[in-house]
Parts: sequence; C-alpha cells; structure tokens
Amino acid sequence: MSTKVLLINGPNLNLLGLREPHIYGHTTLKDVEEAARKQTESYGLTLEAFQSNNEGAIIDRLHEARRKCKFIVINPGGLTHTSVALRDALLGIEVPFIEVHASNIHAREPFRHHSYLSDKAVGVICGLGVFGYTAAFDFVAQKLGMTAVLK
Amino acid sequence: MSTKVLLINGPNLNLLGLREPHIYGHTTLKDVEEAARKQTESYGLTLEAFQSNNEGAIIDRLHEARRKCKFIVINPGGLTHTSVALRDALLGIEVPFIEVHASNIHAREPFRHHSYLSDKAVGVICGLGVFGYTAAFDFVAQKLGMTAVLK
Amino acid sequence: MSTKVLLINGPNLNLLGLREPHIYGHTTLKDVEEAARKQTESYGLTLEAFQSNNEGAIIDRLHEARRKCKFIVINPGGLTHTSVALRDALLGIEVPFIEVHASNIHAREPFRHHSYLSDKAVGVICGLGVFGYTAAFDFVAQKLGMTAVLK
Amino acid sequence: MSTKVLLINGPNLNLLGLREPHIYGHTTLKDVEEAARKQTESYGLTLEAFQSNNEGAIIDRLHEARRKCKFIVINPGGLTHTSVALRDALLGIEVPFIEVHASNIHAREPFRHHSYLSDKAVGVICGLGVFGYTAAFDFVAQKLGMTAVLK
Amino acid sequence: MSTKVLLINGPNLNLLGLREPHIYGHTTLKDVEEAARKQTESYGLTLEAFQSNNEGAIIDRLHEARRKCKFIVINPGGLTHTSVALRDALLGIEVPFIEVHASNIHAREPFRHHSYLSDKAVGVICGLGVFGYTAAFDFVAQKLGMTAVLK
Amino acid sequence: MSTKVLLINGPNLNLLGLREPHIYGHTTLKDVEEAARKQTESYGLTLEAFQSNNEGAIIDRLHEARRKCKFIVINPGGLTHTSVALRDALLGIEVPFIEVHASNIHAREPFRHHSYLSDKAVGVICGLGVFGYTAAFDFVAQKLGMTAVLK
Amino acid sequence: MSTKVLLINGPNLNLLGLREPHIYGHTTLKDVEEAARKQTESYGLTLEAFQSNNEGAIIDRLHEARRKCKFIVINPGGLTHTSVALRDALLGIEVPFIEVHASNIHAREPFRHHSYLSDKAVGVICGLGVFGYTAAFDFVAQKLGMTAVLK
Amino acid sequence: MSTKVLLINGPNLNLLGLREPHIYGHTTLKDVEEAARKQTESYGLTLEAFQSNNEGAIIDRLHEARRKCKFIVINPGGLTHTSVALRDALLGIEVPFIEVHASNIHAREPFRHHSYLSDKAVGVICGLGVFGYTAAFDFVAQKLGMTAVLK
Amino acid sequence: MSTKVLLINGPNLNLLGLREPHIYGHTTLKDVEEAARKQTESYGLTLEAFQSNNEGAIIDRLHEARRKCKFIVINPGGLTHTSVALRDALLGIEVPFIEVHASNIHAREPFRHHSYLSDKAVGVICGLGVFGYTAAFDFVAQKLGMTAVLK
Amino acid sequence: MSTKVLLINGPNLNLLGLREPHIYGHTTLKDVEEAARKQTESYGLTLEAFQSNNEGAIIDRLHEARRKCKFIVINPGGLTHTSVALRDALLGIEVPFIEVHASNIHAREPFRHHSYLSDKAVGVICGLGVFGYTAAFDFVAQKLGMTAVLK
Amino acid sequence: MSTKVLLINGPNLNLLGLREPHIYGHTTLKDVEEAARKQTESYGLTLEAFQSNNEGAIIDRLHEARRKCKFIVINPGGLTHTSVALRDALLGIEVPFIEVHASNIHAREPFRHHSYLSDKAVGVICGLGVFGYTAAFDFVAQKLGMTAVLK
Amino acid sequence: MSTKVLLINGPNLNLLGLREPHIYGHTTLKDVEEAARKQTESYGLTLEAFQSNNEGAIIDRLHEARRKCKFIVINPGGLTHTSVALRDALLGIEVPFIEVHASNIHAREPFRHHSYLSDKAVGVICGLGVFGYTAAFDFVAQKLGMTAVLK
Repeated sequence: MSTKVLLINGPNLNLLGLREPHIYGHTTLKDVEEAARKQTESYGLTLEAFQSNNEGAIIDRLHEARRKCKFIVINPGGLTHTSVALRDALLGIEVPFIEVHASNIHAREPFRHHSYLSDKAVGVICGLGVFGYTAAFDFVAQKLGMTAVLK
Repeated sequence: MSTKVLLINGPNLNLLGLREPHIYGHTTLKDVEEAARKQTESYGLTLEAFQSNNEGAIIDRLHEARRKCKFIVINPGGLTHTSVALRDALLGIEVPFIEVHASNIHAREPFRHHSYLSDKAVGVICGLGVFGYTAAFDFVAQKLGMTAVLK
Repeated sequence: MSTKVLLINGPNLNLLGLREPHIYGHTTLKDVEEAARKQTESYGLTLEAFQSNNEGAIIDRLHEARRKCKFIVINPGGLTHTSVALRDALLGIEVPFIEVHASNIHAREPFRHHSYLSDKAVGVICGLGVFGYTAAFDFVAQKLGMTAVLK
Repeated sequence: MSTKVLLINGPNLNLLGLREPHIYGHTTLKDVEEAARKQTESYGLTLEAFQSNNEGAIIDRLHEARRKCKFIVINPGGLTHTSVALRDALLGIEVPFIEVHASNIHAREPFRHHSYLSDKAVGVICGLGVFGYTAAFDFVAQKLGMTAVLK
Repeated sequence: MSTKVLLINGPNLNLLGLREPHIYGHTTLKDVEEAARKQTESYGLTLEAFQSNNEGAIIDRLHEARRKCKFIVINPGGLTHTSVALRDALLGIEVPFIEVHASNIHAREPFRHHSYLSDKAVGVICGLGVFGYTAAFDFVAQKLGMTAVLK
Repeated sequence: MSTKVLLINGPNLNLLGLREPHIYGHTTLKDVEEAARKQTESYGLTLEAFQSNNEGAIIDRLHEARRKCKFIVINPGGLTHTSVALRDALLGIEVPFIEVHASNIHAREPFRHHSYLSDKAVGVICGLGVFGYTAAFDFVAQKLGMTAVLK
Repeated sequence: MSTKVLLINGPNLNLLGLREPHIYGHTTLKDVEEAARKQTESYGLTLEAFQSNNEGAIIDRLHEARRKCKFIVINPGGLTHTSVALRDALLGIEVPFIEVHASNIHAREPFRHHSYLSDKAVGVICGLGVFGYTAAFDFVAQKLGMTAVLK
Repeated sequence: MSTKVLLINGPNLNLLGLREPHIYGHTTLKDVEEAARKQTESYGLTLEAFQSNNEGAIIDRLHEARRKCKFIVINPGGLTHTSVALRDALLGIEVPFIEVHASNIHAREPFRHHSYLSDKAVGVICGLGVFGYTAAFDFVAQKLGMTAVLK
Repeated sequence: MSTKVLLINGPNLNLLGLREPHIYGHTTLKDVEEAARKQTESYGLTLEAFQSNNEGAIIDRLHEARRKCKFIVINPGGLTHTSVALRDALLGIEVPFIEVHASNIHAREPFRHHSYLSDKAVGVICGLGVFGYTAAFDFVAQKLGMTAVLK
Repeated sequence: MSTKVLLINGPNLNLLGLREPHIYGHTTLKDVEEAARKQTESYGLTLEAFQSNNEGAIIDRLHEARRKCKFIVINPGGLTHTSVALRDALLGIEVPFIEVHASNIHAREPFRHHSYLSDKAVGVICGLGVFGYTAAFDFVAQKLGMTAVLK
Repeated sequence: MSTKVLLINGPNLNLLGLREPHIYGHTTLKDVEEAARKQTESYGLTLEAFQSNNEGAIIDRLHEARRKCKFIVINPGGLTHTSVALRDALLGIEVPFIEVHASNIHAREPFRHHSYLSDKAVGVICGLGVFGYTAAFDFVAQKLGMTAVLK
Repeated sequence: MSTKVLLINGPNLNLLGLREPHIYGHTTLKDVEEAARKQTESYGLTLEAFQSNNEGAIIDRLHEARRKCKFIVINPGGLTHTSVALRDALLGIEVPFIEVHASNIHAREPFRHHSYLSDKAVGVICGLGVFGYTAAFDFVAQKLGMTAVLK
C-alpha cells in the first residue's frame, strides 16, 4: 500500500493566482495541487489535497489523517496567526508537518510575523512563491527515504 | 443591469435586538436588512444581505462577491478583533468596504479597541446603533454617484 | 418539564483520550458525556451534549440554548484563547456557564494563560482531568438547588 | 426657542481642503460649516460653529455650551490623541458628542489609533471625508427627535 | 496509620463569610474547615487545617508537612499574586497541591490574573465559592484512591 | 515687603463645584481662592491666584513668578498627564511647588496615574477634595517659616 | 465613648529619623506618634498607633480595627508596592484610609510609582515629610465632623 | 523679492540663557535671533523669527508661512514630545523644516527621546547648544543654493 | 562568462556537523559547500563560498560581491538576530538573497524568533537541516532561469 | 573587640541540602553556617548567622545589625524577587552587603531574573552552589583588610 | 604640536555615495574625508580619518586615540544600534565625541531610533547628508577655541 | 599532561585599570592574567589567557579550546549584552564556563542587566572587582577536584 502525504491549504488560498498577484504570483491552487501530485507520484507517494476557508473543516480533515498520512505540508493562510485550535489539531494527530507561505510573511504586517504553528513544525518555508510547496515535498520524500521513481 | 452592494453581518448579529439591548438597541437583524433594502433601492442599488456565525461561510460569501459587488458594508461582530482570514478575504476580492459597529467599541473591553479590518476599510462607524448601517449606505450611494431615485 | 443543562466541548476534544494522553488522560469524550449524563440524571437534570471543531457550529448550538438551558459547562478547547465570537455568544444567550479544562493551562504555553471567557464565567476548573466535568456538574446541581434523586 | 447644536473643529482644520487633499479631499472648512448649517436648519436645529488651533480656546468655547447646546459634533484634529484637558471639558459640560475624523485614522500612524475622547463619545465616524459631518448631524437630529422641516 | 491531607488558608481568609459577602459568600472559615474535616473523614483521610495572615508562618507550616502529608489544598489569598517564597516552599516539600479561590479571580483586578503557584499546582479551581474546597477534596480522595467510608 | 505665593489652577478647574460633583465636590473655584487668600494672609503671606484653560497662558503666568514668588501650589488639571512644556516652565523658574488634585487620580483612568510634574514637585496631595489646597498652604507656610499671624 | 482612629506604620518606619535623613528628615517615629496623639486629642479623637516590620502582624492589627476604628492613616513603607494581602485586609475591614509617604515616591525608583493601595484609599499624600501625617489627621477630623476641642 | 526663512522657538525658550544654564548655556533668545538674522542676511535670505509659549499661536504662525517661507528651523521645546497638532501644522503647510534642540535630549529623561516631528523633519540637530541654530541655517542656505553674499 | 552565486555562512557554522548534532545534524560545512558546488554547477552556475566568525569579514566579502554575484544564499548564524551592519551590507550591495537556517529557529529561544534580515530577504527557509541550502539553490536557479545542464 | 559580620538566609533555605538537590546540592544550612563560622574565624572575624522564613523577622534582625556589623552576606531566597521592604531595611542600616544564590537564577524562571537588592549590593554571586558563601566571605575579609589568622 | 581630531566611519560607510543614493546622496567617503581634512586644516587642526566594517578594528583605533585626540566625530553606521562594546570604548578613552548620521534615522525602521551612543555624545546630527560632518567639525573647532586660519 | 583552563577577556578589558577606575579599580589586565596564572598553577592547572576587542577573534579562540580546555572563565565586556554568536560559540564547544564582571552590572544602565550568556553559564560573579576572577578560579579548581599544590 502506498505512503500517503497530505497537502492542506487554508482560507483564501482558493484565490491563489487570482488575488494580489504582486504578492502571490499567477499560479492557481489547481496548478499547485496538480504539480504536487505529479511530484509526489514521481517519488512513489500518494498525495491527498484539501483546501477550505473554514477552520473547523480543516481540523476535521486533519483528524481524518491521523495514523493514515506520514507527512503534512500546510499553508494555513490567515489561520497561521490566530488559530490555537489548528495547532492543537496538528499536535493531536501526531503527524510531522512543514509550514509553507507563498509570500514572505516577515516583509508584511507585524501580526504576520508570529505563527501558532512554527515552533511545532519540522520546518518553515516562506517567500519562495509556489516553489515553497515543491521544496517541501522534496524534503518530505527525502525524510521518508523515497527515491524518485522515474523523473 | 443593476449595481449590487453587499451587507455582511458576522457572528451573533442574528441576536441583534434580542441580546443585551442596553448595548445594541431593540431593532432586529431582519429590521436592519429590510431597511437597508429599501434605502438602497431608493438609490437604484440592489442589496444582497448575508449573516453567519461561521467565519468560513462569510469568507465563502465574500469570494462570491468578487467582481460582482461594488461596495460592502460589514459588521464583523467578534471576528473584528480576531480574524486575519477575514481581512485576507476582503483584500483578496478587492471590493471597497465600510466597517460598522452598532455599539461604541471604544467604550468596551480593551481587546475590542483593535480591529483587523479598519486600516483596510474606507471608513469606520461605531456607536450610532443601527443608524450606522443607514449612514454607511448613504455614503456608498454618494461614492457610487447614485441619486436617490424617488425618496 | 425537566431542567436542561448543556455540555459543550470545543475543537479537538473529540480526540480526548486519544491524543497526548500524558496531558489529557485516557478517558474518551464518549465516556465523559456518558458519565455526565448519569451524573446529571441522578440530580434530576437533563443533559444535552455537543462537540464540534467548528466555532460557528458551537455558536449556533449556544444560540439554540437561549432561554432553554439553565446552565452550561464548556470546555472551549483552543477557542478559549482566540474567540471573541464565542464570548459574545455566551454573553448573548444570558445563560451562566462554567469553564473546564482537563489540563492545567497555567503549566503550558503562555498563550494558554489567557482566556476570552473566564472573566464572564461563574468559575473555572483546570488541571483535574475529566474530574473537572464532574465537579462542574456537582456545582451546577447545587446552584440549581437539585437534590440527588437516587445516587 | 430653537434647539442648539455645536460643531467644533480643532487645530489645522482651517486648512481643510487646502492641505494634503489626497487624505482630506477638497472641501473647505467654510463649505463644511455652510453645509452643516443648511442641514441642521432643515431639521429645525440652530448650528453654532467654531474652529481654533488653540486647545484653551476650544475648551473655553465648550464651557460656554454648557446647558445651552443639546449635542456636539467635534473633529478634534491632532488634539484627539493628546488632550486630556479636552476630554475633561467634554465630560465637564455634560453634553453628548460625536467624534468625526475626515481621514481613516486607523490607516495612518499608530499614534493616531488612540483617542482620548472616543470612549466618552456617543459614537465615532472616520474615513468618510466630509460626509462624516453630514452623517453625524443626521444622527443628532434623529436622536433629538427632529423631523426634517422641509427637505 | 491514617493518610493526612492539609488545608491551608492564607491572609484575610479568617474574614471569610464576614468581608465582602457579594464576592465571597456567607460561609465562615470555621464552617469551611468543619465541612472539610467531615468530608475527608468520610473518605478515611485525616485533615489538618491551618490559617495565617503571615507568609512566614504558612511556610513554616508547610515545611512541617514535608513527608507527612499526601496532598495539600491551598487558598493562598493575596499571596497568590506576590509570593515567590510560598512557591518555593511548596516546591521544596514535594507534596502535590490544588489551588482554590472562592472568588473568580479572572473577573477582578488584572494583578489577580497571575498566580505564582498555578503552573506548579495539579489544578486550579476558582469562582465556585466554598464549593471549590469540596471539589478539591473530592479530587484528592479520588487521586489517593480512597473510597468513601460511609457517606 | 510681603512674601508671595502663587496658586495655579489649570484647565476646567473653573468648573470646580459645578461639574461632576460626585468626584470634585460642591466648592467652587472662587470659594477655593477666597479661602486660600484668608489662610495665607493669616500666615502673613500674599496669595496670587490664576486659572486658565490655556497651557500657554499658564506658562506665561509662571514665568512672571520667576524670582518673585517663593512657593507655588498647582492643580494642573488635565495638563498633569500631557504637558512637558508645563514641566519645563516649572523647572525653568526654579520655584518649589506642590501638586494638588481634588480627586484621587489613582482611582480613575490609567492615563491619570502618570504625572509629568510629580517627580519634580516637593510633594503631591490627591483625593482630599479642596482640603488638599488647605493642606498644601499649611505646608508652604511651615516650610517658609511663617507663624500664623492671628488665626 | 470616644471615636477611634488608627495610625499604621509599616516596615522600616521604626527607623524614621534615623535612616537616610536626606530623604526622610530627622523626626523619629516616636515623635510622629506623640504629635499625632496630641493632634487627634485636640479634635476629641482617640489615636491608636501601631508599627511593625511584619506584614502578617499589620494585617492582624487591621482586622482588630474592624468595626472599631472610624478612619485609618497608613504609611505602608515598602509593602505599598508589593502587598496584595495588605490591600485585601484594608478592603476586608471596610474602614476608610489615607495613604501617607514621607518621601516623594514619584522622585524615586520606578517600582515605587505603583501602589497596591492608592486606588482604594480616600486620598494620598507624599513628599511632605512628617507633615503628611498632620495633614492626614486634619482631614480625618474634618471628615468625621470634629471641631478642634481646644487647640 | 527676497527668500524668506522662518525661525520658530517653542515654550520656555524665551528663558534661554536664563534657566538651567548648565543645560542650555548663557546665550539669550534675543542673541540667538539676532545672530540668525545676521547669518541669514549674509546668505541673502530674510529671517522671520517667532517665539511663543502657546501651541495654538505657533500653529497660527506656521499657517501664515504657508507658500511664503522656503524653510523652517524649529526648536519646539516641550511640544516636541507631546504635540500632534504641531506635527499636523508642519505637514499641512508643506514647508521643509529642521528640528533643533540646544540640549542633548538623548541624555535626559526617557520621554524626551521621542519626538512627534523628527520623522517628518529633513534633519535633527541636538546637544550643540545655540550652535545648532547656526548649523541649521548654514544647511538651509546650502539647500536653497545661496552663496554667502559677503561674510 | 559564467553567472556567479555566493554562499555565506556566519559565525560557528564552521562547527556544523560537529556541535549539537541533535539540532544541526552530522553533515559538515565542507560537505555542504561541496554539495552546493556540484548542485550549482549542474545548473551552469559558479559558486563562491565563504565562512567567517567575524562580522566585519563577512561584510567585506559581501561588498566584493557587489555587481558581481547574481544571488546570495546566507546562513548568518547568531548575527541573524543582532547585526544591523549585516543588514545594511546586504541592502547596500543590492543583490537578492535567501536566508537559510539549518535548525527551526521558531522552536528555540525567543530571541531567535526575530531576524534583522528576513524582511529584506526574498525568502526564508528554516528547520530543514542542510537540505535548506539545496532548496535555496534550486530556487535561485529557477529564478535565474537556469536549466539543469546535465543532472 | 572583634569585627562582626552577618550571614542572613531567607525563606526555605532551612531546607538547603534537603529540597531539590539537583538545583541546590546536598550541603545543609547547618553545614554552611558551620563552615562560614570557621572561615571567618580564620580571618579574625566574628560571624552571626540567622535564617528565617519570615520577612519581618529578617528585617528586625537586620535592624539589630545597624552600626554593629561591618558586612552582610545574604541569600534572600524568594524574597529576592518580591521584597521592597527588605531592600529598604538593607538601605536603612547602611551596612554593605553581598547577594548570594546557590543556584543560577538566570537559568530558571524569568521572574527570578530580577532582584530588588542587586543594584544596591556590592556584588552578586550565583550558580556556584554553597561555594558562593565561601567566595563572599573571602571577599569580605579582603575588603575589611583582614589577614587570615592561621589557616 | 598640532591638535588632533579623529573622524570615524563605521560599517558600510565605505559604500557612501554608491549605495542607496536616495538615502545617502552621491558624495563618496573619500570626498568626505578630503573635505574634512581641508576644513579642519583651515582651523589649524589635524585630522585623522578611519573607516572599517569591523567593530573590533574600530575599538582598537579608538583606544589608540586615548590621550592623543581632542575630539571625535563618529558615524557608527549599523553599530549605532547594536554595539555596547563601541559605547564602552568611547567611554573608556574619555574623548568627547559627536554622533553623525547622513540619513534621518528617525524616518527609517524603528530599530534605528535607538542609539547606544547618543546619551554619551556631546550632540547628534542626522538627516543633513554629508553636511552633517561639516557642521560637526565647525562645532568641534568652536569648542576647541580654534579660529579659522585662512579660509 | 596538565589540565588546561582558559581565561577570556572581551572588548575594552585591555583598558582595565586605566579607564573609569571608580567603576573598575586600578588593577591592569596584565596584573589579572599574572595573578590568575599563579593561582591556577598553585592548583596544578595550566592557564591560557586571551583578550581581544574583536568578537570574531574571540569566537575563533574559543573554537580552538574545544576538547582541549576543561573550564573557561570569561568576562565578555560589552558583548555580554549583544552577542548571540558568542553564546553559540560557548554552546558549540561544550566547555563549562563562569561569567565574571568586575563591576556590578545591576547597578548600571538597564541594558547591562541582560546577558546572552548567563543562563548557559555554570555561575555568574559581578561587582567584586578583579577578586571575581580569583573566586572563579577557586571554584574551577574545586570543581575539577584539584588540591592546591603548594600555596
């Protein structure tokens, strides 16, 4: 049975590539998920992808991943800075995760400089646009000992 | 085709007129929406009104308004002080908005003195009870160059 | 007609007994709700129990309790520290409540030391594990003047 | 005898329409006072208008209004953020007041986010340009139970 | 030989039931100690009770309990917020303790929101009046594996 | 030639006895100045009294007192908490002064807890109503070595 | 039966007149108590005086005064800035009090600028040396409606 | 027509050379203005000089300079640290300015370390005594492209 | 002529793989530089690598890169949190850079949560061990439009 | 007559060697006092040693030492961080003192990083276990010009 | 023998005139040093000039100036805000100094608003570009009583 | 082979005994190193001593000591309060160290109250002048189990 990894995108990331392109670029969420699927497949991993604007729905989805997924890549959107419940969900399911932000949150408003997730993440990538997802899954594959199947 | 404006009411505003009348008065949400509908019609505008106790549902509703509504009047309730995701939604859809609070938030608990929306709003009205909505739509009409149709 | 009391459990408490047992112990949410039902019945009270990972759903559920329930026992999970909307819901329905935390929030991260509910609660119990719920309902029964029916 | 209302404009508002038009617009103080006079007359109210760059002169003028004016609309300019004496004057004369700012003070320097008056005001309007005055007097008229005389 | 538990009440709790009854209720300290004695006896435990207005005397008393008492229930009064020496005493004697406050300290002055003991306590109960002591000893009994002897 | 002392009252103290009597009592400023005149005369001192709502006017008046007055009793009103210029004036004229507040500023809003004058005053009296002026002049007389002339 | 008033001096005030005379002057505590006794007698009041370096002893002494003394003058020494227990004692006995400091605490270390008592005191006098006690008892006498018996 | 420059001195600078000479030196304001007049004349500039202890008067004087003066040198005295209205006046008249302090404000009380003007000034000079004015006008002349006429 | 990229490692990174392997892993600096050289070569880029424990030497090295290097990958070590001079150097040479930390700085001491470089970086990667460098150079190559030469 | 030095140990130091040996080691207070006695004797000094859990008793003891002891070595225990009264006592008796902590207070809770005594001490030693006392008395002997008598 | 003065420029000032000309202008460091040499010569002073990107090298250079130079003009660059060691060096050599910044540090990032040197400097000049150096040396010459030799 | 210990002195300590003798005394660095050499020899230890004004050079020197020295005594000078890189070096080489300051850093500027090293040091000694080094090496010898060879 194949190894599962989960990609979570939080509130407003359905607008990726549409809103504020000077900050987030032109690649859409669909593009991102498609690319991640190909990339993870090339490593012999199975991707599950989920986006929601609803904190509760994301927590429900994370609970589902408990004992099923091996790694999570998450861009929590605005919840990064405000959601203890999301932090608790990630701690509760005991799956390691990487936090990704397309924009450089350190170059934006001060309230974006604090994350409720970072100290519990394996690592954090920000400011590299959608390449951040690519780097995260490369790392995940390495961590899970996967060799690229074809590539 | 008529010009659309959107009225958003956040968590607990379904209790307007019912809860804590010494702070919020006796007018109900239904009254408010009805009055706003008449007022905007008199200006030749079409009102869409939405209330939810769910942050995610409000964000979904705002996304729908992208490129469809010309102006938003929003009373974000308790989300005012806690929701970066709501701020991001309003920024993401690029529709100007006015923030309204029925009560005078400056005369209440200190945590109500900060809003995650105000610096991105066109303007803010608070403490004038449900008249705040009326003033906001008068302003919107003026801004959109509407002349009162009949009145 | 019997007197109703409401037990609310917030985000991630569906994982009670499953996640981080060194902090929360091994009793599951189902166990807790079952025990609370028996305990309240023994006092002649009717328990309603609700858990959700969704802030909006909890607020909706609280609104339903308006003028119907006499007391609420709530473990708000991560929302404790972040939700003004939940505070407003509890204030809006005008039902007294007790705040319960299974873990000792004062022995954890600093952001868990502040609660948006505590100053409006009748009282707060933390660190006593699931016994906290038991103590809360004993207090509720005393407050409502109930004598244990059988026990 | 007619009911009096008072319009106070603080330091630098004599430059309204002249300075920093990208923030304050092009309407002059004279225009504002003239429009307010017409608007209040239409409600059967008598307007008194006063502007000064001098804190002491404004306080003197407010004392005069004690027991004579029914409502005050005040744009305190820079004194908003620095004058306890102005706050004391408004409290001392016991006349209700609305605080108006033409610009959105929440979108400007952090020191403009705090007002020594707001918690004692009936309400606050900001960011709506000179329309803020109009909305304020509409509210005053409603509050004082005036029906528009002609309009 | 019977298992000992210790009840400590700090400064001003000798006035319990006498001072500020709207905050603390009408039960006196003597009532509390009497009730606790009966309650613990019913569990087969031996209660020792001590009250003092003197920090040093309380520390001396705690030292005495070292290796003799199995559990402590303590209402530290005003020392809660100011005494590192008391914290050190409780840590030094290595006996687990529960912190009880009759009033809801979160609804009072900000300096009452911090306790020098809470993060080292097993748990904290506040706002439940003298019932807080009852709940604490119920917990202690459960923790020590006692079955109510008669009750 | 007689020894001069100066009594300064700042903004809004002309309303003394009129505004907010639950805080300030019913004695008027005229009463206070009259009583101070009699009291200082009885000590063989000559009183000069000045009140203004204008910071600049008070500073001008203080400059006049340079090398002419031996002691100042000042109730700076709202300027207490905001005026560095007033502090500089008092330092610049090198006359010792006592700061008096009729109300207890420590029991009011937090911004009233800091004074720009107190650390440079000889002493501070607050909360004793208009008796504060009496006590101040008794102290001044003692300090200047005056024996009550008749009394 | 005569009306009792209580004079409390806290830690280190037994050194008054001995330690740091550049701050506290040369009058000893005995002098102060003697003078206060004469002064209060002249008003027909009976003085009780107490000094201790021990917080607990002062609290015990205050409890004794409950319902017996009409007014308290207290110089709490270093406890001013650190003792919530002392605050609670003064609140618990429900006797009005004046806080006196011989030195000007605002001209000393920052931690001396905050008092746990001031907001609950009738008033505060500082910096006037031992004259502060005299002024306090003059005020007390006036407040209690005493006419100087002989003087 | 000659090019005008304006020298503004704020509250208490009329005491320059008189008060606290260890901080400010012995040169009087008259000396300063005289020297500045000669210096600016030598550059072919016309000096206007103004001092007031009154914030409002200074603002009025600045408004007069609008579109008439090319540069302002201002020593705002105590208003530096407290006056948003002065900042607004300088912004409103759109004339570049240099902020001068005779004393080294960084070596004095902490509240003197913040200025409401500095971030909008071209530059700031402090601690160089009255030479600060000289340096400022040398800079102004250079900036305005003036060659010393005679010197 | 080939395109140059620069790899900078700050203080103590010469100990990489030697010190605290539970935080930094076992790969040495030499390994890192070797791998980066191969990786960049595969993209047709020329790597220059530099490590120093000396802030000044790093700044000198950065100045050399001005107008010569196209991109910088920098792990500033402890200077991250303390060096404004390093920030100024990076701004002064106008070369885009990525900030890399082998450890997750958000999971360590609070003073490591702030970086003087992040808001000026293109992006930040932390917690991914030495893979962070790999991801950074992949991004650099993509940004510079390089196709992997062989790989 | 011999020169006296005083060793003060504050609250909980009677448990030295008993409580938390991983922090404080196994030497008891009696051992410490015995060793100090021998050490000071060898220098021709007379040691007086005092321990109490009671702040008031320590202050009383310090007052006794006024003009009698030449130097004090004090380990104030938990009072270090909370007692202004102890600071005042040490200042009041005008005897130089050294502050000693067996544990490294900088490696413990943040509230242990501030001492109310350190800025008035001659010096501070912490983290060296009971050797800290030895070092302190060596310093005292050197300071008092004592030559070791025998050793 | 001639009187020596020292000009120190800190990190990145070797890029003066090259980097960020919109902030720092186009004059190079060489230009600045050349001009300063001429200016000081005209006053009969001998200039020594030093620039380094290395804190340690600057401290070494300052030590050399001990007892040899009469005055220092220093632009510490980024070390202004971070170097206690530089402060200590300037204090240690006991030579008066003026702090110069070409840019207006108050108009830049908040961390540039604090300087570790300013409170120990004679004075500070900022925002006047390279003219700041000129003004500083004019002041130095005046202070050292030099008359321009030729000019 | 003999056991090595290292003495590090940071920036400006080469001026020891020369600069600010009222703070640091008259003993020079050479004296200190000489004395330390004798003292450690008497214990059979070999001292290596190093001073530099350059952070990088100190870090290089510390790296050299890795696995060679058994203990370090360090007076980091101004780097104490600013250098994370120094902290990292000390952590990286895994040699225990004692932090020494000749002056009492708690009695000086507030920024000297925080050290980036103290929480990782074995202990800290300050205010005892150069005796601090002596005490430190006595402790080191004891810790390393050395008996004084001759002495």
